[in-house]
Amino acid sequence: MTTDSRPPVTVIGLGAMGKALAEAFLDNGHPTTVWNRTAARSEELAARGATAAATVAEAIAASPLVVICVLDHASVRNVLDAALGGTDVLDTPDAPGSGTGVLAGRTLVNLTNGTPAQARETARWVSGHGAEYLDGGIMAVPPMIGTPGSLVLYSGSQESFRAHERTFEVLGGAMYLGAEPGRAALYDIALLSAMYGMFGGFFQAVALAGSEGVPATEFTPLVVSWLNAMATALPGMAEAIDSGDHSATGSNLRMQAVSFVNLLDTSRDQGVDAGLLEPMGALLDRGVAAGRGAGDVSGVVDLLRTGPAGDARTR
Amino acid sequence: MTTDSRPPVTVIGLGAMGKALAEAFLDNGHPTTVWNRTAARSEELAARGATAAATVAEAIAASPLVVICVLDHASVRNVLDAALGGTDVLDTPDAPGSGTGVLAGRTLVNLTNGTPAQARETARWVSGHGAEYLDGGIMAVPPMIGTPGSLVLYSGSQESFRAHERTFEVLGGAMYLGAEPGRAALYDIALLSAMYGMFGGFFQAVALAGSEGVPATEFTPLVVSWLNAMATALPGMAEAIDSGDHSATGSNLRMQAVSFVNLLDTSRDQGVDAGLLEPMGALLDRGVAAGRGAGDVSGVVDLLRTGPAGDARTR
Repeated sequence: MTTDSRPPVTVIGLGAMGKALAEAFLDNGHPTTVWNRTAARSEELAARGATAAATVAEAIAASPLVVICVLDHASVRNVLDAALGGTDVLDTPDAPGSGTGVLAGRTLVNLTNGTPAQARETARWVSGHGAEYLDGGIMAVPPMIGTPGSLVLYSGSQESFRAHERTFEVLGGAMYLGAEPGRAALYDIALLSAMYGMFGGFFQAVALAGSEGVPATEFTPLVVSWLNAMATALPGMAEAIDSGDHSATGSNLRMQAVSFVNLLDTSRDQGVDAGLLEPMGALLDRGVAAGRGAGDVSGVVDLLRTGPAGDARTR
Repeated sequence: MTTDSRPPVTVIGLGAMGKALAEAFLDNGHPTTVWNRTAARSEELAARGATAAATVAEAIAASPLVVICVLDHASVRNVLDAALGGTDVLDTPDAPGSGTGVLAGRTLVNLTNGTPAQARETARWVSGHGAEYLDGGIMAVPPMIGTPGSLVLYSGSQESFRAHERTFEVLGGAMYLGAEPGRAALYDIALLSAMYGMFGGFFQAVALAGSEGVPATEFTPLVVSWLNAMATALPGMAEAIDSGDHSATGSNLRMQAVSFVNLLDTSRDQGVDAGLLEPMGALLDRGVAAGRGAGDVSGVVDLLRTGPAGDARTR
């Protein structure tokens, strides 16, 4: 292998994200095999130099590194079941370790959105079929893939991550979070939770501005600079959360709970649904009721912990 | 008046924010009169050069520009009622325009947290007592007052804003939003709604990370850089909201609604309260049900409009 030859990659699933992944591999000189449930998508990529596999099994057989990015966890299992059903040696989930099927010896990288519990389940299943497993969370939208702004989180087989790290870097930043296969999904879901919080706040803000005829495009620059300013408070809150010292530096939780009523009233007065705001109001009130009113707002985070998890690992 | 002499200012209310306002005026050479319900706070500032007024009426009489910053709208009215009750000429809210009381001819700047409806009500009441009125929203925490990162929004009497703009700039940026007195409160509340959305998302994120023993201080830098990256999507969403063209560029609303179930499931699996997330999940589902699934997530903002407002102006 010369320094210029890039290892082959297979991409299964060519939705907006899978297509972006395959294009990034192609653009960086990786021999790329693709498969999609509907063949038209594969043909598009074949025109750009990809090899369109006729079956999932053929796609998996084409490369030691197989990336799967489909709609959801159920689709991952459907596709993999189809792959195994199409081989001569039929492995079943009930016979882990017996596998000499098409997956054996390969690395499967699952970049499908999912929960930590789903990642751990898929990891067990894939290991049972003799393959290495990495679960990943893509912290980017498709147009960002391959740019420096893109970040993909990985967890699972460390050996596989190290072996393929250079290939992963074609997609953007590659961050390895450890051997626990659910960790990348946990980070992914936690970051998405943060993002949807911000989006929800933004939706509320522009709906309120719009209720008085202020265009979203006029109001948004103010929102963005305000959010950037307020994001600087987050590291301090993180320190308070870790240390348990929630001494208030600015307005304390009780004052914020009092003022929060104005947020709810204003939305209602302006004919804007207050539903996105209500759980935060209730949480602030719970914090005050729990005796944390004199401290910082960060003191409410503990109250989100509902106790020992119904985590799938322990079910 | 030499170029170095600064106009006198009165500050009513010396909580954390009022104290920061008074200190900024003092630090910039404004003769500053202060009043607080509990006198100890006034004495602290007197030691720094402020004049501690014995009564609210005396405090108001001391300066043509009076800034009030107390806990809430009810407190504003209590304080002003006390001021008027303490003068020789008693004005009542029922006799607007008859006022020759202590407020007459002054400018009252109300920087107390409140709703647009409350601002409009106070504006009417203050005008009825022969004073100019400005309502304001402080987009800063107390330690930021007087720094370039601080922003105060004003609406109401344009003449008063122009007359006192240089004094207001002592507190940080001063932005005038027009004569409608409720506008500053609307912007304030809308920006706070955005902030609490972001804070709620952050709380959820660090609670999820914490459920697997990841310290908040370790996870937060990733959250901050992710939120900064995702905030760049907001101007594009604003354009979609104004134009009504919600064509999806990345993953569409339907896909996001599907993936959102993973956020809810993960919180529940990890023993973290999903309550902060639930209304966003419901909103995405409503968007899909309303036929907007093929478009961008920004298409849900319209659904927050619950119809003609129960706005206090029209009650």
